Parts: sequence; structure tokens; C-alpha cells
Amino acid sequence: MADLQSDQLGQAGGRLPQVLIIKQPIALDGYLPDLSKRFDLLKAYESPLPIDDFLATFGKTVKAMICTRGTRVDRELVSKLPSLELIVTTSAGLNLIDLSECCRRRIAVANTGEIFSADCADLAVGLLIDVLRKVTSGDRFVRAGAWPSKGAFPLGSKLGGKRVGIVGLGSIGIQVAKRIGAFGCSISYNSRKPKASVPYPFYSNVCELAANCDALIICCALTAQTRHMVNREVLLALGKDGVVVNIARGAIIDEKALVRCLVEGEIRGAGLDVFENEPNVPAELLSLD
Amino acid sequence: MADLQSDQLGQAGGRLPQVLIIKQPIALDGYLPDLSKRFDLLKAYESPLPIDDFLATFGKTVKAMICTRGTRVDRELVSKLPSLELIVTTSAGLNLIDLSECCRRRIAVANTGEIFSADCADLAVGLLIDVLRKVTSGDRFVRAGAWPSKGAFPLGSKLGGKRVGIVGLGSIGIQVAKRIGAFGCSISYNSRKPKASVPYPFYSNVCELAANCDALIICCALTAQTRHMVNREVLLALGKDGVVVNIARGAIIDEKALVRCLVEGEIRGAGLDVFENEPNVPAELLSLD
Repeated sequence: MADLQSDQLGQAGGRLPQVLIIKQPIALDGYLPDLSKRFDLLKAYESPLPIDDFLATFGKTVKAMICTRGTRVDRELVSKLPSLELIVTTSAGLNLIDLSECCRRRIAVANTGEIFSADCADLAVGLLIDVLRKVTSGDRFVRAGAWPSKGAFPLGSKLGGKRVGIVGLGSIGIQVAKRIGAFGCSISYNSRKPKASVPYPFYSNVCELAANCDALIICCALTAQTRHMVNREVLLALGKDGVVVNIARGAIIDEKALVRCLVEGEIRGAGLDVFENEPNVPAELLSLD
Repeated sequence: MADLQSDQLGQAGGRLPQVLIIKQPIALDGYLPDLSKRFDLLKAYESPLPIDDFLATFGKTVKAMICTRGTRVDRELVSKLPSLELIVTTSAGLNLIDLSECCRRRIAVANTGEIFSADCADLAVGLLIDVLRKVTSGDRFVRAGAWPSKGAFPLGSKLGGKRVGIVGLGSIGIQVAKRIGAFGCSISYNSRKPKASVPYPFYSNVCELAANCDALIICCALTAQTRHMVNREVLLALGKDGVVVNIARGAIIDEKALVRCLVEGEIRGAGLDVFENEPNVPAELLSLD
């Protein structure tokens, strides 16, 4: 953001360039005062106008927009912003932005690049430990007051020696591999094509990867190709003792299939940072440990 | 256990040596059938007799005992077992066993050595990630159905660059350091004396270590010297953004001081696998996130 000069956005006659923000950008809260000095921030979320009216009123002159996670930028939205030159998203994923339309309109799109990769990787490892060692379920057990009455909590499972499959060995996947290696797990991966720079075994097929792993960690982007890539077949290949962790996008997993596998004990557990229809989480998932 | 020959325990006249087990050894459940073939297991937890009567009846000829976590072996208990030659505990910690009395009586004591070190280290890292990235509190948030109504969950804090102080650089502490290093944390430690074999800065004083760290991970044994070693002064030195993780023994932390610091926001959070008076957990702790 610091490199974004306001004159690049066509500042004319002393007026600040207009930047549209549709949803409240919580991650940017601390930066808004500074941004306000350099840009005319059009905060749709503070306006009493419905979004369509807001765009009809202010959309014509908007030069740039800031998207927070959950803001969908489709062809229809872009058509209401004829002066749009730049989309900045606070997310690493671009699945909610119609990239081919942006390409056609020559609108630049900037995401967070690798800024969040380490944090996503930390969380992925945290969720894997959580599911295997039953951290949150142990927390619920203790908080529910069950320890004195029910006695010992069931044992967890160790990380050491576990075969972990990383789905998508991009900047997040690489960071996950680096961390997981320190726990004595063996690593293999699936991605669009094998990476020459890594020593881990490559599987071109997610199902085959799952069949050879105790845990899958989903780190790939959500695209038309990866939507529901982790389906019932993959989960069954992972098996009864298998664990799936998703820190990417909910829809990479077929959530209905996941719920069924969890309910029926066809896999051991799941550590989910994302869901298919956020913020709505299937009731069956919430009822499981 | 496999090396424990029954004849070493004074098997005479074809009778199997008597082994006392006071509390149900859940971690050994799968091994009991095999042990039963080689030893006469005296399971006090299955007897209708009060423990004193049980020991008065059977204690005289007991050669060995198996202790599970929570079994206290004090001078009084040992005095009721005049033939005792060996204590085997399923725990790494020996804080519940009166070692000086065992030494005087020439009773051998075997613990789990380093078998659990990797698992304890995994959990320590899991709890650190959990507190910093708010995993269990996020889990509660989602399960409580708060996501659709309250919107975004507060952001967590990254591990990268955090200064982590390890209290007790034994076999568990070393394994924690190895894992934490992969997350880009810087490591320093406190122990009885500096270790020549490690590259991490040493602090002879826990309070000084805390003052120079963002997180403390307690990995030391509970002894008379370490009881309440992490007191209010240490927690205040750790500071408002500080996190404490305890996978050792509850009583190493002054729990009352910890609760007060958490309630008053004098430290950021705590990841606790152990408590001072297990299985009883202070109500104030349960009410906190």
C-alpha cells in the first residue's frame, strides 16, 4: 500500500482519488485514518443506502476498491464501476474476484501475496496438533466440569511418524512442510505439477495422496479445478484414522461428504479454519467433537 | 517393561511376583492381559476394600508397584509395602514419589524416561499456537453460533518473531525448541545450569527470562525448588502481551497468581495442560477465554 501513489490513480484538480470499500475492513482498521488522508474512501458499509443505490450514486468515478474477505467482485459489480483501475484485496485468495473480467477490463488486482503464508501455516500445524492431541475437545471437557466426574480424557495420537499430505505446495504449503518436518512427520504432496526444488514425494492424484497419508492439509487456491476436489472418495482413501485440515477455502472440500464421513466415523477428525458457506456452519459439524 | 524378568522380582515356588496397582492405569489398558500372565496384579481399584485395608491385607508381599499419574507414593505408603523393590510409573515426572525414602529403602524407581518427550513438545507447541491464534476460543465462537450474528472474530497474533522462553531445557524442552525454531521464533531458556550443547541464550533467573520473552513454555520437573517458581512477579515480567504454556506440572505455576493476572489482563493468555489441584480447575479459569 505504501507504494501506491495517489497520482497514479488519476488525482485531478486537488481531489483525492475515490476508493470504494464495500464491507468493513477489520484487518485495516488501524490504517484507515492514514488512508483517508490520501484517498477519498467511499465506505458503503457506513451508508444507509442499499449497495445497488450506493454504487449507482458513487460508482461512476471510483478508481480503486479495497476488498475484504467475503466481498465478491463479479462481472455485474465491475460493470457498475466504469472507472475502476485497481482492486486491492486483504486476502491471499482470489476466488471471489472475476479475474477474466478484470483482465478484459485491464483492472489491476493486488492480493496479499505471501504476507499471511507463515500465519496460515502456523494455524494449519496448530489445527493438526489440535485434532490429533484433542486440544479443543479437551478444553470443552474441562470447561464442562467433566474431569472430576468422568475421570481421564481419552488419549490423543502422536504426530511423530505421521504421514502428512500437503494439497497445494505453494508459499503456504512450503511453510507447512517446514514446520511439520520438525515434528518428525513424513511429507508428500499434490499440486498441479511437481516442484523441482523440494525433496518430498509428489502425487499427481489427490486420492492416491490420501491413500498414502494419515493426514491431509489443504493449502491450495480455490479454483474451478479445486472446488470439491476433496470429495467422499478422497476422504475414504484417507481412511478411518485419517485427519483433514483445511486452512484454504471451505469449498475445496465437499462439505456434505465431509460431514457424512465424520458422522459415520469414516475419518477420524477435521480441523477447519474455513467452511463452504461462511459464516454458516452445518449443524452436524457443530454437534461433533 | 519388556526387560523386566519376573525372576528378578523374586519369583519363588512357581508363584508369580505380586505387583500392586492402586489407580486404574488407563495408559496400560492394552498391556494388562500380557502383564497378568507374568505377574500377579493386585488391582486395588477393583477391590471393594478401602485402600488402607487393601494394603494391610496384601501389602506385605508386594514386590513391585505400577503408578499411574496421580498415584502419590509417600513414606507412609512405602512403609506398608515392606517387600517393595521396584516402582514403575507411567509418567515422566517423579514429583509424587518420595525419592529420598525410595533411595533409603533401596527401592528402584523407573519412569517413562524420554518416551513422551516428543508428544509433550507437540502439545506445548499446539497450546502456544492455540493461545496466540485463538483456536479453542474461535472454536467456541463458531460452535456458539456467534459467527453469523457477531461477524468477524478478533484477530490472533503471529508466531513468527516471537521470543519464546523455555523453562527447563531437558528432553522435552529441547524438543520444544526444535519445533518452535521452525516457526521463526527466537529461543532462550532457563534451567539449573547452562547447557554447553545448545546455541540458545541462557538466563539463570526465570524472572529475567520472562522480562525478555513474549511467551514462556514450562517444561521443567516439579520439585521443591520449582514449586510456584512462576509466581506473580514472573508473570508481571512477562507482561500484558505475554503468554504462558504449561505442559509440566500445575504447581510450578502459582495458580492463584496466574488466575489474577489473567482476570486483570496483566498477561495475555495461558495454555494449560496441567493444573495445581487436578482434576479440580479454578472456576475463574473456566470463565475466561
